[in-house]
Amino acid sequence: MSIVVPAGFRFSGVSCGIKQDTTREDLTLIVTDAPAVGVGVYTQNLVYAAPVAVDRQRTPAADIRVVVANSGNANACTGARGIQDAEAMARMAAEACRAQPHQALVMSTGIIGQFLPMERIAAGIRDAASSLGADPASFDRAAQGILTTDRGSKVAGRVLELNDRTIHLAGMAKGAGMIGPRMATMLAVILTDARLEVADAQDCLVAAVADSFNCISVEGHTSTNDTVLLLANGAADGPPLTGSSLQSFQASLREVCIELAKMIPEDGEGASHRIAIEVRGAATRDDAHRIARTIADSALVKTAIAGGDPNWGRIVSAAGYAGVAFDPDRLSLSINGTRLYQLGQPVEFDASATSRSIQEHRETHLLLELHEGSASVTFWTSDLTVDYVRINAEYHT
Amino acid sequence: MSIVVPAGFRFSGVSCGIKQDTTREDLTLIVTDAPAVGVGVYTQNLVYAAPVAVDRQRTPAADIRVVVANSGNANACTGARGIQDAEAMARMAAEACRAQPHQALVMSTGIIGQFLPMERIAAGIRDAASSLGADPASFDRAAQGILTTDRGSKVAGRVLELNDRTIHLAGMAKGAGMIGPRMATMLAVILTDARLEVADAQDCLVAAVADSFNCISVEGHTSTNDTVLLLANGAADGPPLTGSSLQSFQASLREVCIELAKMIPEDGEGASHRIAIEVRGAATRDDAHRIARTIADSALVKTAIAGGDPNWGRIVSAAGYAGVAFDPDRLSLSINGTRLYQLGQPVEFDASATSRSIQEHRETHLLLELHEGSASVTFWTSDLTVDYVRINAEYHT
Repeated sequence: MSIVVPAGFRFSGVSCGIKQDTTREDLTLIVTDAPAVGVGVYTQNLVYAAPVAVDRQRTPAADIRVVVANSGNANACTGARGIQDAEAMARMAAEACRAQPHQALVMSTGIIGQFLPMERIAAGIRDAASSLGADPASFDRAAQGILTTDRGSKVAGRVLELNDRTIHLAGMAKGAGMIGPRMATMLAVILTDARLEVADAQDCLVAAVADSFNCISVEGHTSTNDTVLLLANGAADGPPLTGSSLQSFQASLREVCIELAKMIPEDGEGASHRIAIEVRGAATRDDAHRIARTIADSALVKTAIAGGDPNWGRIVSAAGYAGVAFDPDRLSLSINGTRLYQLGQPVEFDASATSRSIQEHRETHLLLELHEGSASVTFWTSDLTVDYVRINAEYHT
Repeated sequence: MSIVVPAGFRFSGVSCGIKQDTTREDLTLIVTDAPAVGVGVYTQNLVYAAPVAVDRQRTPAADIRVVVANSGNANACTGARGIQDAEAMARMAAEACRAQPHQALVMSTGIIGQFLPMERIAAGIRDAASSLGADPASFDRAAQGILTTDRGSKVAGRVLELNDRTIHLAGMAKGAGMIGPRMATMLAVILTDARLEVADAQDCLVAAVADSFNCISVEGHTSTNDTVLLLANGAADGPPLTGSSLQSFQASLREVCIELAKMIPEDGEGASHRIAIEVRGAATRDDAHRIARTIADSALVKTAIAGGDPNWGRIVSAAGYAGVAFDPDRLSLSINGTRLYQLGQPVEFDASATSRSIQEHRETHLLLELHEGSASVTFWTSDLTVDYVRINAEYHT
């Protein structure tokens, strides 16, 4: 699928030797000539990486020109030198694009606890700055440059007509492991040529992340580096979006974020299924989210789905220890449309047909109905396979 | 290791066809002719099994005579009929031992959501009542009767001299999967011939569980059936323990509970390592427990240990998302005595020597020092191996 690139942005992705495999891109540069509104949402981990510290200080802003990102090294747990390196990386990218240092944002992903190879990064930035392009192929190389254990790039886009202008949204994300329940992406950047007020951009991004990157997990481990950035450069022209136009933009941003977020557990390390956990009828959205997340993080649920086993006991008992008050006698559960548990009681069902349904579909849909209220959430995770363990036991520091 | 059986108790374990493998015991009976003080600590899961509901009503008590337990069927998520079955099982056991119905406690473990095979249970209770013995072999058959996926029975005991009397403590436990962070055993029974006041017995058990069965996990999934019972029948004679004697008893009870609890992650399904997570210098015990538990439940930490990888980044980042406020710049980490991270900074260490140390020892010791206060906790879990996934993907409902 080719993404229509928003106006006014240029992209590049190059290999500069941070990753051991030098055939893979490991440095990404995104540039907008017109200064953009830039906002971010970041990891809630107390132990956060140097680039997160830098970007937190620089956003929200009205004049972002550059995003530089590397894969292969997270620049996390690297102390004061890590902060200096992240600032230097941003400064070099800004200089290469004739921007001011504070106009650059920076992201890193990869191994924790090693210092960035700054000479390679400097060379990579020079290389990337000389190969910027506004075409889809350049966008795709940029999307490649942020990947680590991902099986392929994760991109999504939307085109919409607002106030007689054509607005584009294009996003890229990475993430396949260390995906936790809070602020659960790894890295994502969403670019738009819409014009937005800074506060509206921030509100739109926070709301979109709540329904997308905060509703996924692979193994429930919140990373040190999670970052979602939104850049709006206004190149589509016109005044800032307001009212129903802003709402339409918000709806499209949410769609793009959900589309990107769902690709992450889909690509979860070793995953053979994506599991969609829909909790309906909770008293509050927070209750629904907490129950869905607890089920998503249960190794027993995840191994059952990997094995094609409609093991409702593991699902129901995970809901029971989520720390949410509900009446177990009003709980019902369906898997892939088949009711297995009704108002606190098991019901007769064709276990082999349900097992076949799990095995034959890439996504397994769990529907829990609490009958406590009207709040609902959908949360996505991966199943837990032998290959997940192999990948993560053999990945060495 | 042979356990010295406390005076006044008799035991049996028989096979009555609840488990498919009829060579394995699946029904356990424990009888004390002198009524015992009986106290319990139970699962915190909102979805709790019928035997838990029955025992919760019957404890604490001063006149317990019988504990009946079965493996192979959890009698969980079985509604009103499940409660009737659990009460009937207790009543049959009481009758077989010439006790009153309310003097019997009941425990079940195994598959969720199926009704107990009551005819087999009735036959098993008759069989067990006719084969009771006070010898170590009978005790061991009783310990066998509560096992499910355990590789072997889990027993521990102590003998102590208090007030010129010899006091015995003997415990049995089961559990290897669905072991969660709250009230994290499966089933355990500790028997003593000490004489205790009911309130003292309850306090002693709650305190001992806090340091033992509440400090273990395999995969963080809190079961519907978790139960720890303490029966004190006073057969060692003398007045109820008080003061320093009670404290000595409490210390021994704590030791027995820790010894039993540690056997559970040691025997965690597919485990190749037990991981001891010691958190020191926390502001509160709850903070220490929360950090230890979060690390214990990280699939990334558990797969790293399985792979012999001293991946301190995964451990430090798990501490960071535990939801506890601490200063990351004062955090230090050691693995098996080697310092890897000091006051928020990585330190040089011999990675291959640390990896060898992990591979060569059955237990891996993680020490986190927070320098925030004086509270500490030790928490035990299993590593996450390919075999864990195989066992749990292939265990079918």
